[in-house]
Amino acid sequence: MKPIIAVIGGSSCTKNEWALAHETGRLLADRGAIVVCGGLGGVMDAAAQGAKSNGGITVGILPGTDPAAANAYIDVPLATGLGEMRNLLIVRVAQALIAIGGGIGTLSEIALAQRTEKPVIGLHDSFRNAIEMPRATSAAEAVEWALERARSGVV
Amino acid sequence: MKPIIAVIGGSSCTKNEWALAHETGRLLADRGAIVVCGGLGGVMDAAAQGAKSNGGITVGILPGTDPAAANAYIDVPLATGLGEMRNLLIVRVAQALIAIGGGIGTLSEIALAQRTEKPVIGLHDSFRNAIEMPRATSAAEAVEWALERARSGVV
Amino acid sequence: MKPIIAVIGGSSCTKNEWALAHETGRLLADRGAIVVCGGLGGVMDAAAQGAKSNGGITVGILPGTDPAAANAYIDVPLATGLGEMRNLLIVRVAQALIAIGGGIGTLSEIALAQRTEKPVIGLHDSFRNAIEMPRATSAAEAVEWALERARSGVV
Amino acid sequence: MKPIIAVIGGSSCTKNEWALAHETGRLLADRGAIVVCGGLGGVMDAAAQGAKSNGGITVGILPGTDPAAANAYIDVPLATGLGEMRNLLIVRVAQALIAIGGGIGTLSEIALAQRTEKPVIGLHDSFRNAIEMPRATSAAEAVEWALERARSGVV
Repeated sequence: MKPIIAVIGGSSCTKNEWALAHETGRLLADRGAIVVCGGLGGVMDAAAQGAKSNGGITVGILPGTDPAAANAYIDVPLATGLGEMRNLLIVRVAQALIAIGGGIGTLSEIALAQRTEKPVIGLHDSFRNAIEMPRATSAAEAVEWALERARSGVV
Repeated sequence: MKPIIAVIGGSSCTKNEWALAHETGRLLADRGAIVVCGGLGGVMDAAAQGAKSNGGITVGILPGTDPAAANAYIDVPLATGLGEMRNLLIVRVAQALIAIGGGIGTLSEIALAQRTEKPVIGLHDSFRNAIEMPRATSAAEAVEWALERARSGVV
Repeated sequence: MKPIIAVIGGSSCTKNEWALAHETGRLLADRGAIVVCGGLGGVMDAAAQGAKSNGGITVGILPGTDPAAANAYIDVPLATGLGEMRNLLIVRVAQALIAIGGGIGTLSEIALAQRTEKPVIGLHDSFRNAIEMPRATSAAEAVEWALERARSGVV
Repeated sequence: MKPIIAVIGGSSCTKNEWALAHETGRLLADRGAIVVCGGLGGVMDAAAQGAKSNGGITVGILPGTDPAAANAYIDVPLATGLGEMRNLLIVRVAQALIAIGGGIGTLSEIALAQRTEKPVIGLHDSFRNAIEMPRATSAAEAVEWALERARSGVV
């Protein structure tokens, strides 16, 4: 079974966050992982674009009811109609999560991941003063960490 | 965007239902559709197997929390942990649904699809005396019907 | 603990269904049960009105995001924003359900109840040719049946 | 319509948090509000106990499937079976929220409230270094703030 890794972060992001998310997506695809994200712009778009640049499979778990709202790099756009409740679905279906940048929506996902004991690691996330969690200094390190957690079945 | 079509039906099924579901999955993949199902056995397994025999993408929306519970032909196993509430998610994310055989769980999906105006067609479904809906006499006819509804964006 | 009984049925209904739902709500309140419903019109309104006429507590589990959409006899309007997915929440939180009249939405609730082994009984429900289930011939009989199932903790 | 106010916080808490939650529940009941909480121990138990000491109505939105898991001061125990996804339901159905103490689960609720523009105020919450939000220095102040937001229909 392919590992299922979520990349979470803001629908708008800095250039640096974009580059990190793209690299994360690219490396996850390289390692055979399915990349799950919220399906919209910013970090979600970058991660999906990175994964597709490398032949990966991308899943977008959308808040609305229209699959066409997904960014152009999503293979499987799932229009849940759940609003922000879809954040929880992202946390549920992922075996591990990588957080890049992010605003309050991403914070809700990190908190829910920690609360439900889903492995989550920060990669230049926005919450260094707010939340204690493992942190990576490179996309490669974050990807290794997430894949190891997914493999060991800590779900 | 690829059409997203759900094939719904029982986790156990007759040989005839199995053959119809396999053929439906195969034809959907042939037409470039993503096949969504509940990810488990019977009709779900047959539809996914048919789609994979033809290079398609398959998504399993599982009731439990373990992606490994998906059948062997699911590319993207999504372990929602929602129990039977996942039935509704299948209806939500599909652009059209094809019902084959099926028990009370499938009936709940058909009813929710009709209630939310999602196109759903029966193909030797178990509810011919219970529910009025469009019915196809072959997998090919059901697939054409579903793809046409998905394309016309009746979502 | 008070038993939690759902009364399910259409947002429009016949005079006879209205009278049955009102009597069901009244008797449930008399027996100390909390009456849960979808919070809108028709059977839901009648059941809530019946319960309030007898000092009961009524809960409306609404599809939208505005609690003010509840009918005037709902003590606790819960605006879930889940759309028809709220049907499943009604089935989940009830210990037993009584179905009166009803259209396709009610059918989805009955099917989900049966699928998840929640006790559900029909009282002049619309599905006598479609679904096998226990049926009562009076509100009193339905209420007794539901309370007994709730007490025996078949949840 | 009665205002619907959620009191959120940890299932274990300090004596001071317990006293604040009890006072908050008591004042909310005094003002005719329905008190919604997660239905378990700690802050949830204290808020419900305070509300009941003053004749209020209390609703517990539980993670599991057994309504008997609710604390003894919950009038309406709703066993959602949603796990931590029930946190989002608390945020959805409340018109305003008051956060007292709390761990990572409470943080997820605050983040989801802010993300969905639900008014949320901290009262000796645990996140003073992590999250910017309005903060009250007394239960009375928090209750006034929440009721005003609920009345103005910022939902």
